[in-house]
Amino acid sequence: MREVAILGVGMTKFGISEKTNLEMFAEAALEAIEKSGLEPKDMDALFFGNCLGGFEEGQLHMAPFAHAELGLPTSSPATRFESACATATVAIRHGALLVSAGVYDIVLAGGTERAAKMDTPLATRTFAMASQAQHEYGAGITFPGVFAMAAHMYAAKYGIELSELKKHMAEVAVKNHHHGTLNPKAHFQKEITVDTVLESMMVADPLQLFDCCPFSDGAAAVVIAEAGRAKDLMDNPITIAGMGQASCGPLYLQRDLTRVKAREAAIKQAYSQAGVGPEDIDVVELHDCFTIAEILAIESFGFYEFGKGYDAATKGEAGFGGKVVVNPSGGLKAKGHPIGATGAAQVTEIVQQLRGECGQRQVEGARIGLVDTLGGDLGTVCNIILRS
Amino acid sequence: MREVAILGVGMTKFGISEKTNLEMFAEAALEAIEKSGLEPKDMDALFFGNCLGGFEEGQLHMAPFAHAELGLPTSSPATRFESACATATVAIRHGALLVSAGVYDIVLAGGTERAAKMDTPLATRTFAMASQAQHEYGAGITFPGVFAMAAHMYAAKYGIELSELKKHMAEVAVKNHHHGTLNPKAHFQKEITVDTVLESMMVADPLQLFDCCPFSDGAAAVVIAEAGRAKDLMDNPITIAGMGQASCGPLYLQRDLTRVKAREAAIKQAYSQAGVGPEDIDVVELHDCFTIAEILAIESFGFYEFGKGYDAATKGEAGFGGKVVVNPSGGLKAKGHPIGATGAAQVTEIVQQLRGECGQRQVEGARIGLVDTLGGDLGTVCNIILRS
Repeated sequence: MREVAILGVGMTKFGISEKTNLEMFAEAALEAIEKSGLEPKDMDALFFGNCLGGFEEGQLHMAPFAHAELGLPTSSPATRFESACATATVAIRHGALLVSAGVYDIVLAGGTERAAKMDTPLATRTFAMASQAQHEYGAGITFPGVFAMAAHMYAAKYGIELSELKKHMAEVAVKNHHHGTLNPKAHFQKEITVDTVLESMMVADPLQLFDCCPFSDGAAAVVIAEAGRAKDLMDNPITIAGMGQASCGPLYLQRDLTRVKAREAAIKQAYSQAGVGPEDIDVVELHDCFTIAEILAIESFGFYEFGKGYDAATKGEAGFGGKVVVNPSGGLKAKGHPIGATGAAQVTEIVQQLRGECGQRQVEGARIGLVDTLGGDLGTVCNIILRS
Repeated sequence: MREVAILGVGMTKFGISEKTNLEMFAEAALEAIEKSGLEPKDMDALFFGNCLGGFEEGQLHMAPFAHAELGLPTSSPATRFESACATATVAIRHGALLVSAGVYDIVLAGGTERAAKMDTPLATRTFAMASQAQHEYGAGITFPGVFAMAAHMYAAKYGIELSELKKHMAEVAVKNHHHGTLNPKAHFQKEITVDTVLESMMVADPLQLFDCCPFSDGAAAVVIAEAGRAKDLMDNPITIAGMGQASCGPLYLQRDLTRVKAREAAIKQAYSQAGVGPEDIDVVELHDCFTIAEILAIESFGFYEFGKGYDAATKGEAGFGGKVVVNPSGGLKAKGHPIGATGAAQVTEIVQQLRGECGQRQVEGARIGLVDTLGGDLGTVCNIILRS
């Protein structure tokens, strides 16, 4: 297997867009290709992520149309991936694996999603399709409910008062909203306080509105190349040091929702391949679909012992200057969450952090960064470790 | 890249089923795993195909649930592929590539679909989502319409009377229905005549009802392993000699519908990798979604010059004892077409043909076989060449 690296990255502003999925993807992809000093005809293949296009635009089989929009060669295949919220990360991983294998030399990978303008019943219905429809949806278990249960289980398991845990969860939202104010592409760019969270509408006890990420529109894409070729093309390619992907099915197999089994398996693969451990990570973009999800993630990575990560944001350890900077982009919580594009935006942020291109939100001296994307109610996790 | 081979294969009966997608996939996959002398825990990854689960069962993100149904290990990732009708072939190709690369040693790949019981308006609406929704669907261009245009263009381009071409197209249906009578897993197992076709309901002129394949329920799966390992596990693994995948976007880029650009690019890749040509192929399972589609395909493969393949079925050259036996399983036309499972069933048939396991429909002395699956209105083509 050859070493592989990321060249150019591109993303649209996240938020509410009037553009189609294909238009948004073309914008992000052309930015990534141009920053790589390449042209669409140089792409050997397209690894394309989208989740809800069938419902949002009546469009399945979107990959060859994205391929056509960009003018890729017919001989360069375009393949659609769908792994719920982990969609784009899984697409990027497969692109990187096939470059590493020598099947391709340069590929384009990323994702796009229109999710902001779905009305709440349709959004709830279609998002819940990423959980096990036969047994979970019928029981009324939608995603806020699953992560609310995880919060209750966390409080009970580790003997923390729920009211206390809620304040620490709120601090995660406050931090990520602060980070979002520093990101011109973030869906939300406004400061909030702990009271903003605790006084917001209850969604699924104990999760209130500001514990939850939004649905956004947006797209992001990256160009991946064999490392030697990458060094010929640009000064600062970012090495893909390690990757992991793992699966854990429906909730009835999960048992302990405070321990995300698929993440523990995926991060183990990524650390092992990269030859690094939690102590080496400078910055992470992780899947904070709900505030409690960020707490669970930093424990899975080994940044904290299980049951000890809940007050990282409160203590300032997850913000700039902290132990590991968590979600400098604003995360799903403030940067936004266009489902099938989210993982590609996380990779984009880490690549830019490792290149020192993040301006006000730059993590000083970042050399090794981690991407973490969770699909469904803990069913899929994909991790990517990047190194400058 | 290492040589890879197919071990066990499995498929459900195609037709109308009361089972869920997950139940059908489990049946096919467990058959494939058992025939490989392996257990689910031996699968390093799952490459899973499904197209319409979001609409048919309210289920996206189906891969980790299929993974759970089979009891695969958490560390073995499950990834969903969707490339319209080429879904399962694309999933198998990616599984084979990653085994070839050494990322995995043994993987499970295949697909499942429930499509038979959708009512016609929903089926028409969701199937059309594999065409370019923004420009084509609104113009009323559904799949029968596209292939009807291809038939008209074929007749005009090569100076064949449409009424004459229709008789030859009908012979394709007669042949594939005959093959279906020899396949106990086929959706339709009854003989038809040229008159059955020509007297059937008009769907999209010149395509009549019996020019069109059905929508079916079904699943199929295969186990893929590194060739050396495969030989340790069974006497007759079937080598994956070559693969190709290519993309061509919406119809407005196609121009000449009689020449499927994506197929011409994909088969070139597959022939080149396998080191064979059209003269070496003994048997093919190809994408006869409509009778005209079979004619276009055999020309793309180089079995016939362009404009010369239309009467292959009439002359008996595509049936048993012919030049190349086309769709001995009955093809999509008679075996049936469960969208996201079709490619895996084609691979299953070719594997069984090359092992001499096909009984009444055995192609005598078959050594090299070709799989061909087309997604959407010519947007994706994936080819796989197998060798005994």
